[in-house]
Amino acid sequence: MHMDKVDVTHHISSQLNEALEHVRGRVLRMGGVVEQQIARAMRALTEADVLLAEEVASNDYQVNSLEVSLDEECTQILARRQPAASDLRLVVAIIKTITDLERIGDEAEKIARTAIAVTDRRPAHNYTSLESLANHVRGMLRDALDAFARLDAEAALAVAREDTRVDHEYEMLMRQCITYMMEDQRTIRGMIDLMWCARALERIGDHASNICEYVIYLVEGKDVRHTTLDEMAQVVRERGPEATPAQPGDDELP
Amino acid sequence: MHMDKVDVTHHISSQLNEALEHVRGRVLRMGGVVEQQIARAMRALTEADVLLAEEVASNDYQVNSLEVSLDEECTQILARRQPAASDLRLVVAIIKTITDLERIGDEAEKIARTAIAVTDRRPAHNYTSLESLANHVRGMLRDALDAFARLDAEAALAVAREDTRVDHEYEMLMRQCITYMMEDQRTIRGMIDLMWCARALERIGDHASNICEYVIYLVEGKDVRHTTLDEMAQVVRERGPEATPAQPGDDELP
Repeated sequence: MHMDKVDVTHHISSQLNEALEHVRGRVLRMGGVVEQQIARAMRALTEADVLLAEEVASNDYQVNSLEVSLDEECTQILARRQPAASDLRLVVAIIKTITDLERIGDEAEKIARTAIAVTDRRPAHNYTSLESLANHVRGMLRDALDAFARLDAEAALAVAREDTRVDHEYEMLMRQCITYMMEDQRTIRGMIDLMWCARALERIGDHASNICEYVIYLVEGKDVRHTTLDEMAQVVRERGPEATPAQPGDDELP
Repeated sequence: MHMDKVDVTHHISSQLNEALEHVRGRVLRMGGVVEQQIARAMRALTEADVLLAEEVASNDYQVNSLEVSLDEECTQILARRQPAASDLRLVVAIIKTITDLERIGDEAEKIARTAIAVTDRRPAHNYTSLESLANHVRGMLRDALDAFARLDAEAALAVAREDTRVDHEYEMLMRQCITYMMEDQRTIRGMIDLMWCARALERIGDHASNICEYVIYLVEGKDVRHTTLDEMAQVVRERGPEATPAQPGDDELP
């Protein structure tokens, strides 16, 4: 009897683990799609490639259907496998991560739509700062997905720190745009398009930070949303770098 | 034995219902707080009231802690009550609604921070359009929360339709701002502040629409995110207005 019970538990937990691995893999692939969307939207903008821009804009439906189907997969895991403790926390974090990835997709689509609108009046001299901002936030997103894949709180914290630098870069770019507009009002429309793209990129940085906060929450069991970077670092350091990061199934709900 | 089992089931389901009612009540109160934040941020902006603006900005921590604590409450419900079918869908929809409400709070905070920054150079002549946009989206948010409270898919659909009008109003306001900037470049800074506020309001409308899409999903069991308004109306109408709206516990997962 005892053996039977152990076997059943083992069986259930391995089905749960498989389901969790499956959905995590799909989230990472969704992240890859979304990162591609940002890269291609930026290329369409800087190379004035309307066809590419239209392709990016129409590809957003893929990101959207990934969101709907991943949400459904998570709901099914909750219904059928009834995960407890840190497995449950993982599923909730995945549901939230999916929302952030979908919103990143929306921002990429906005850049693509701007690329379609601005091709005849592009202020080429200023795309350098925008491209550098775009590379910065794409790097953040990649690192956030990496931290999520390895459930690495230290790496997640590093990404959250990066967001402060992105915000600074964004502010500089904004000031630059306003200066151009004041100097020559023929640049106003072009600069406003550029400012919307910069704002979209800054938002992508915020979403990447959100994903990192879920990772820290998962690993450390403390909610670090709406805390300062120093407080976050405290949470990550309390455990110490030599501590083994928690894996799904390790611990109880806080 | 049979009676015992029925009693236990009844007991469990009434505890679950109580837990769901409790968390729904708190979500509605969070919605009320957030709506107040928008109203007061707008008043601070139009009346150049820096003290009020600072109060609104610093009150955002309340909205943030509501998000964290409501997320925790939902996770506890999933862990302890293991809801199935439409109860489970309700919990997932609540988790998503909380995120949208928190983001609305962020947008209100942004308007408040703009109000702090612009007081010395306010372009008063243009606040009328902005105020009308603000009233429009506040109405949308109120109606969305109402639809959520009554799980009313028809009402939710009406709010989603309203978002098209809000987007149109926003576009008009943007064009107006650009025209002013081109006519008189001394207005550039003020107009950009105003454009950020308008963008924040337009986002609030989007978040209110998201909440309505969760309501339609809950009631109709079909995911209407990323579908057109016509497709949404189709889903709501298929049931017909005389059909009883589904309540948590009524049906199975799709």
